[in-house]
Amino acid sequence: MQGKLYAIGTGPGASDLITVRAARLLDKLDVLYAPAGRKGGRSLALSIVQEYLGEAVQIKERHFPMTADATQKQQAWDAVAADIEQDVKQGKQVGFITLGDSMLFSTWVFLLERLSDKIDIDVIPGITSFSAIASQAQFPLCMEKQSLAVMSCTADADALRAALNSHECVVLMKVYGRFTQIRQLLEELDLLDHAILMANASMGSEICYPDLRLIESGEDLPYFSTILVNRTWALN
Amino acid sequence: MQGKLYAIGTGPGASDLITVRAARLLDKLDVLYAPAGRKGGRSLALSIVQEYLGEAVQIKERHFPMTADATQKQQAWDAVAADIEQDVKQGKQVGFITLGDSMLFSTWVFLLERLSDKIDIDVIPGITSFSAIASQAQFPLCMEKQSLAVMSCTADADALRAALNSHECVVLMKVYGRFTQIRQLLEELDLLDHAILMANASMGSEICYPDLRLIESGEDLPYFSTILVNRTWALN
Repeated sequence: MQGKLYAIGTGPGASDLITVRAARLLDKLDVLYAPAGRKGGRSLALSIVQEYLGEAVQIKERHFPMTADATQKQQAWDAVAADIEQDVKQGKQVGFITLGDSMLFSTWVFLLERLSDKIDIDVIPGITSFSAIASQAQFPLCMEKQSLAVMSCTADADALRAALNSHECVVLMKVYGRFTQIRQLLEELDLLDHAILMANASMGSEICYPDLRLIESGEDLPYFSTILVNRTWALN
Repeated sequence: MQGKLYAIGTGPGASDLITVRAARLLDKLDVLYAPAGRKGGRSLALSIVQEYLGEAVQIKERHFPMTADATQKQQAWDAVAADIEQDVKQGKQVGFITLGDSMLFSTWVFLLERLSDKIDIDVIPGITSFSAIASQAQFPLCMEKQSLAVMSCTADADALRAALNSHECVVLMKVYGRFTQIRQLLEELDLLDHAILMANASMGSEICYPDLRLIESGEDLPYFSTILVNRTWALN
């Protein structure tokens, strides 16, 4: 049997928000590569797919350093790519799991760049965090001629402001550690009545703040916190 | 048993790209509302979910007029909302299926507006067409500090131009009937080497054009045609 790599988007957190295609594939894998959890814990991605894995699957957890040191990051990706290439060339069915969707804000793309010319690859999409949040909170994203911008809060303040002024809907990802500035920007643009924050969407620890004004300034929001803005949808 | 409405995103077209949650729910429904197919055919949304439906489910196809006449549209939505409300208040488990994701460019939101205060509702997200396209074509959307705009080609040319200038990645939905103008805009902005077009993503009739220059000007592209642009990812 020919070896192949399957890059699988796990969706936002709930095990049953992965696709049927992903669930069926996970049962057939020989090897599954998973990002190692932070602080030594089981990774979230691995916990999502656990119930679908076959009994014989070999799990290879790999640590991807969260560092500004580009060389260190490159080396980590090179090493994982080499391991995957070897497994696939031995004829194995190999999975790589990545949170949310596989092709949107996913470090999986660093592996794709290294492996696309070398081995056979299938990519399976996943539910994005913002789709899950919009559904859970029943907060619509765009309609008809409207537009949506998906921004990382690590972007420049000017880019965030421009997006909030140009699009009816804006998803603000990576809010963690930047909430105070982001809320101030939303207040300045008169958008606080059109924004919600959700953390840990679809997980047991999910929490939704339908009014951003009520979040204490010093509150330590969860790492997976995302804000949705829709200026055509009033909340309060 | 308490009645409930489940709004279910079916994903882009392949039956196995719906979520496990949706597949399990579909098996338990008493009634399923589905948009009627165009030209009298079975609707795409219904064909996607067919294999997951229980034997006893009652299917209620409803026609949603594609018209500029707002009154006619309002009446159609009012009527479907009234039917659903009645079924749910009789204690039934009722599904409503919608292509792609439930909360993004989905007419489902017109029902949500009418029903959210009246009955118990769960919304289940779906894979968006652009996630499916990015995965199938192995064409990445944003990374790190980059941003994504999701635009309808029915928007003003100025808004499309501004989005293409402001964001590393742009999804252009509803290309149908507007391809020539859109390609001209991409050429003008020097983005033709950074764009792909995919139609009928994840379906048997899927077709990908990795070079938009090779599409004949008069070619009748399928209705479900979408362009992805990533100015940081060169193709040709």
